[in-house]
Amino acid sequence: MNISHIEHIGIAVKDLASAIPYYEEVLGLKCYNIEEVAEQKVKTAFFKVGETKIELLEPTSEESTVAKFIEKKGEGVHHIAFHVDGVAKALEECESKGIQLIDKAPRKGAEGLRIAFLHPKSTAGVLTELCEE
Amino acid sequence: MNISHIEHIGIAVKDLASAIPYYEEVLGLKCYNIEEVAEQKVKTAFFKVGETKIELLEPTSEESTVAKFIEKKGEGVHHIAFHVDGVAKALEECESKGIQLIDKAPRKGAEGLRIAFLHPKSTAGVLTELCEE
Repeated sequence: MNISHIEHIGIAVKDLASAIPYYEEVLGLKCYNIEEVAEQKVKTAFFKVGETKIELLEPTSEESTVAKFIEKKGEGVHHIAFHVDGVAKALEECESKGIQLIDKAPRKGAEGLRIAFLHPKSTAGVLTELCEE
Repeated sequence: MNISHIEHIGIAVKDLASAIPYYEEVLGLKCYNIEEVAEQKVKTAFFKVGETKIELLEPTSEESTVAKFIEKKGEGVHHIAFHVDGVAKALEECESKGIQLIDKAPRKGAEGLRIAFLHPKSTAGVLTELCEE
């Protein structure tokens, strides 16, 4: 698999309105986009830091997997997304190496990326996303 | 605060021997350093991905804060470390903005960095490290 960099870090928060001021006023990062991803039942806020984005995730429904994550573990890092050259091929490689896939094929994520998730049971506990433009 | 990039992501794992093969053989990253940080009661393994490092943290004692993290939340992302220009000054700025500090002054961390932690109560749930060479 050809990983170039960490595309983003997804962070589960109870509400964006409380979290954004910390990232902007304390860390000095700038929120450049807020986007609702209806399919995932989340509202997202994006910040750029070096070559990586921080993606805050606020659940918009109790049924959201992010809401369930917060209920179980509290607010915190929800997933890491690696930028790869060819998500479909990377998924094939993962499957051939016994990694449990959440997505069998790439699908569309926030910011128009092609994304797929690997199951944390196979990735030493970290929900892992592979993505490309 | 002047953050240039994410210096590393700290990931709590039960044991390095089980986690390293996933990072090397599946993700194709290379473990370039294993280091014990006695003060933190952890053994660490480092990988480079773009401008960011992944730092796996295996507790070497049940008293380690990483052991307690795993017991409470399971394996997963333990902290995010931002590279700043001047940790001491950044800490002052954080304190003046009401952020709860874990370290009142920079101390020495793994790989010889000057580091300091902010309390997750003040950082929307993410244990946050500031660091510089």
